[in-house]
Amino acid sequence: MALDVNVDNRDKYLSLVDNEHAANQLKMFPHVVNIFMAFLSYLVTLRVIPMLKDKFIKANLFGIDMSKTTSDKVPESLGVVSGFIFLVTMVLFIPVAFENSLLEKDAFPYDEYVKYILALLSICCMLLLGFADDVLDVPWRQKLLLPTIASLPLLMVYYVSFNTTSIIVPKPFREWLGVSLDIGIIYYVYMGMLAVFCTNAINILAGVNGLEAGQSVVIAISIAIFNLLELSGPLWKAHQFSLYFMWPYIGTSLALLKHNWYPASVFVGDTFCYFSGMTFAVVGILGRFSKTTLLFFIPQVFNFLYSFPQLMKLIPCPRHRLPKFNSRTDKMECSTTVFQYSELSVLGKIVISLFRVFRLIRWEEKNGVVVTNNFTLINLVLLYFGPMHEAKLSTVLLGIQFLCTLLAFVIRYPFASVFYDVYSVN
Amino acid sequence: MALDVNVDNRDKYLSLVDNEHAANQLKMFPHVVNIFMAFLSYLVTLRVIPMLKDKFIKANLFGIDMSKTTSDKVPESLGVVSGFIFLVTMVLFIPVAFENSLLEKDAFPYDEYVKYILALLSICCMLLLGFADDVLDVPWRQKLLLPTIASLPLLMVYYVSFNTTSIIVPKPFREWLGVSLDIGIIYYVYMGMLAVFCTNAINILAGVNGLEAGQSVVIAISIAIFNLLELSGPLWKAHQFSLYFMWPYIGTSLALLKHNWYPASVFVGDTFCYFSGMTFAVVGILGRFSKTTLLFFIPQVFNFLYSFPQLMKLIPCPRHRLPKFNSRTDKMECSTTVFQYSELSVLGKIVISLFRVFRLIRWEEKNGVVVTNNFTLINLVLLYFGPMHEAKLSTVLLGIQFLCTLLAFVIRYPFASVFYDVYSVN
Repeated sequence: MALDVNVDNRDKYLSLVDNEHAANQLKMFPHVVNIFMAFLSYLVTLRVIPMLKDKFIKANLFGIDMSKTTSDKVPESLGVVSGFIFLVTMVLFIPVAFENSLLEKDAFPYDEYVKYILALLSICCMLLLGFADDVLDVPWRQKLLLPTIASLPLLMVYYVSFNTTSIIVPKPFREWLGVSLDIGIIYYVYMGMLAVFCTNAINILAGVNGLEAGQSVVIAISIAIFNLLELSGPLWKAHQFSLYFMWPYIGTSLALLKHNWYPASVFVGDTFCYFSGMTFAVVGILGRFSKTTLLFFIPQVFNFLYSFPQLMKLIPCPRHRLPKFNSRTDKMECSTTVFQYSELSVLGKIVISLFRVFRLIRWEEKNGVVVTNNFTLINLVLLYFGPMHEAKLSTVLLGIQFLCTLLAFVIRYPFASVFYDVYSVN
Repeated sequence: MALDVNVDNRDKYLSLVDNEHAANQLKMFPHVVNIFMAFLSYLVTLRVIPMLKDKFIKANLFGIDMSKTTSDKVPESLGVVSGFIFLVTMVLFIPVAFENSLLEKDAFPYDEYVKYILALLSICCMLLLGFADDVLDVPWRQKLLLPTIASLPLLMVYYVSFNTTSIIVPKPFREWLGVSLDIGIIYYVYMGMLAVFCTNAINILAGVNGLEAGQSVVIAISIAIFNLLELSGPLWKAHQFSLYFMWPYIGTSLALLKHNWYPASVFVGDTFCYFSGMTFAVVGILGRFSKTTLLFFIPQVFNFLYSFPQLMKLIPCPRHRLPKFNSRTDKMECSTTVFQYSELSVLGKIVISLFRVFRLIRWEEKNGVVVTNNFTLINLVLLYFGPMHEAKLSTVLLGIQFLCTLLAFVIRYPFASVFYDVYSVN
C-alpha cells in the first residue's frame, strides 16, 4: 500500500516535471518557428528578387549607378519585394504567435494581438506609400508627409486601445515633476515624429552600394540583441513581440543586402528606407522601448545634424551630395561644394566656424571662394580615411554603425541607471 | 415637504429621460460622423485625382482609350488614390467607432475592434498588390494568386480569433445533416475563393468608361441598403460594421466614377477592381453575410459563366473581347471571334450548341467558318439592343446591375425563408 502511494507520488511528480517541461517548450516553440520562418523568408527573397528584376526595369523603375564605369540600368525599389515577403511571413506567423492563447479563451491577450495586427497595418501602409513614392516620384518636401500618414493607424489605435501617455521622469527631475508625468498630446506628436525621423534618417544616409540595407540590418540585429537581453526581465512580453518582428525583418533584408552589395545588381529604393524606419518605429513604440531604439540610430542622428545646415540651405547644397567616383583609381572621393564666403548668412558663418573648430570639414579658401566637402557622414569618413573603394567604404560605415551599437549598450545599461531605476527605462 | 419630494422625482424622471435620449444620440452619432466623413472623402478624392494625373502619365501609368477617335494618354490605375483616401478615412474613423466603448473598459468590444483593423489590413494588402500589378504588369494567371495572398491576414486572424466554421444547414437537408454543420477547412477555402471571385469578377466585367467604378458603387449601395434593413435585427452589430465601411467606400468611388465616366479622363486600373472586390469580400465575411453579398454579384456571376468557355479556350478567344468602336457612327458594336467549326473540341461544340439554343450568341456560318460575338455581358447587351453610344451602354449595364439588386432582395427576403429561419441567413 505504502509502495502504491509512493508510485502514485512519483507519477505525480513526473507528470509535474513533464508539465513544467512542456510549458518551457511551449514558450520556446514560437521562437524556433519564428527563426525558421525568418530563414525561409531569406531564401524566398533571395530567389524572388532576380526573377523580378526585368519587370522593374520594364516598368521604368531603374537607376544608373553613378559610381560605376558602366551605365547599365539597375532595377530600383526592390525593397517593396523584401518588405512584402516580410509582411506575408508575419501574417503566416499569426497562428503560431497566438496559438497557445487559444487554449485559455478567457485569458486571450487581446492587447498583444491588436498590437500585432496594428503593426502589420502601419508597415503595410508605409510599404504602399513608399512604393507609390518610388513610382510617382513625390517632391522632397511632400515626402516628409508620407510617414506621418502611415503612422495614423498607430496613433488612432494607440488612442483607443492604450492611451497611456505617461512617461517616467528621470531621477534628477523627480523633485519637481514627480515619478511619472502625463504628457498627453505631446506623446502622440512624439510617436508621429519618431516615425518620420526613423524613415527619413535611413533615407539620407544613403548612396553607397549596400549602405541602406546594411545599416538597417545592423540596427535590426542591435534591437534583437537588446530584446534577447530583456527577455528574462519583467517586460518580456513586449520584447518577445519585437523579436517576432526582427528575425523575419533581418532575414528578408539580408537577402536584399546580398543583391544590393557592391557591385549592386538592384537598388533598394525609398520604399525600403520607409519600410525599415517604420518597422523600427513601430516595434519601439508598441514595445515601449522607443528611447533605446533611438540609441541605435546614433550615426543617423549625427548624419542628420551634420547635414542640417545644407538641408536648410544655410550652406549651399548641390543637387547630389554623394561621394565622387574616380574611374581612374576605382575609388570614392569626397564630393565638394563651392561658394563665396561673403554670401553666407550670419548663421551660416557661425555654423561653418563651429564645424571648422571641431575639424568636421575640409576647408580651402582662395580670394573669398571657399571649397568644402559636402556635410554627410560618408564624406566625413572619406575625409578622415582618404579615398577608398566603394565596397570598403560601405564596410567602414557599417563598422561605425556597429561601434555605435556598442556605445548604445554602454549608455543604455551602465549609464541609464543614473537617470532611471532598473526596468523603468523604455 | 411633499412638494419637495415631487420636485425630486420629477428631476429624477427628467434626468432618466435625458439619459435615454443621450444613449440614442450616442448610437446615432458614429453614423452621422461616418456619413459626414464619407462626404468629405468624396470631395477630397474629387480634388486630388486631377492633381495627380500628370504624375501617373509621367510614371508610365497610362493607357489609350480604344473607343475614342483621339489617342490621348489617359492616366491608369487611379483606383489607388481613391482606395488610399478610403483607407485614411477608415483609420481616422477609428476613435469615433470605438469611442463609446472607452467608457466601459471591461466591455470593450475586442472582437469588433480586431475585425475592423483586420479589414483595413486586408484591404491595404490588396491595394499594395493591385498597384504593384498595375506597375509591374503581372501575367494573367499569376493575377489570380494576388487576392489569395491578400486574404491571408483574413484567414489567419479568423483562425485565431473566431474559428467558427459552422454553417446553418438549409431546411430541406436538416433531416440528414442537422441544423448546423461544421465544415472546417472548407470554410477557409470558401473565404479565400470568395476574395478571389469578388476581385476578379469585377475585373472581367470591364472595358467601357465608368463600368468598373459604376458597378462597384451599385453593389456598395446594395450592401448598404441591406445593412440598413438589418440594423434593427439581432445581428445589428455586424451590419453596423459593414455600414461604417460602405459609406466612405461609396464616397471615394463616386468621386473616381465622376472622373472615369464617359469621356473618361482617368482609368481605374486593376488596383480598383482588386480593392473593391476585397472590400466587399471582407465586409461579407466578417459581417457573416457573404451569401447575400454574392447575391449582389448576379451580373458578374452571369458574365463569368458566360465568359468561361472562352477563358478556358474551349472557344477561340481573341486578345481583346471589348466591344468594337465605330468611329463613323460614334457607337459601340459587338466584337466577334472567327473560327473553323470543325476545329472545336466535342465539349466546345456542346457548349456552343447550348448557347445557340438559349439564344445567347449571334451565329453566322459559311463553309464551316463561324463568326460569333465574344462571350461577354457587354457584347450580349449590344447584341440584344443594337449598337449604342458608349455612355448609353454603360448606363444600360448599370441599369441591369440595379435590376439584379432588386432581384437579389426578392431572393434574399421572400424566398430565403423557404430554406432558412428568419435571421439565420448569412
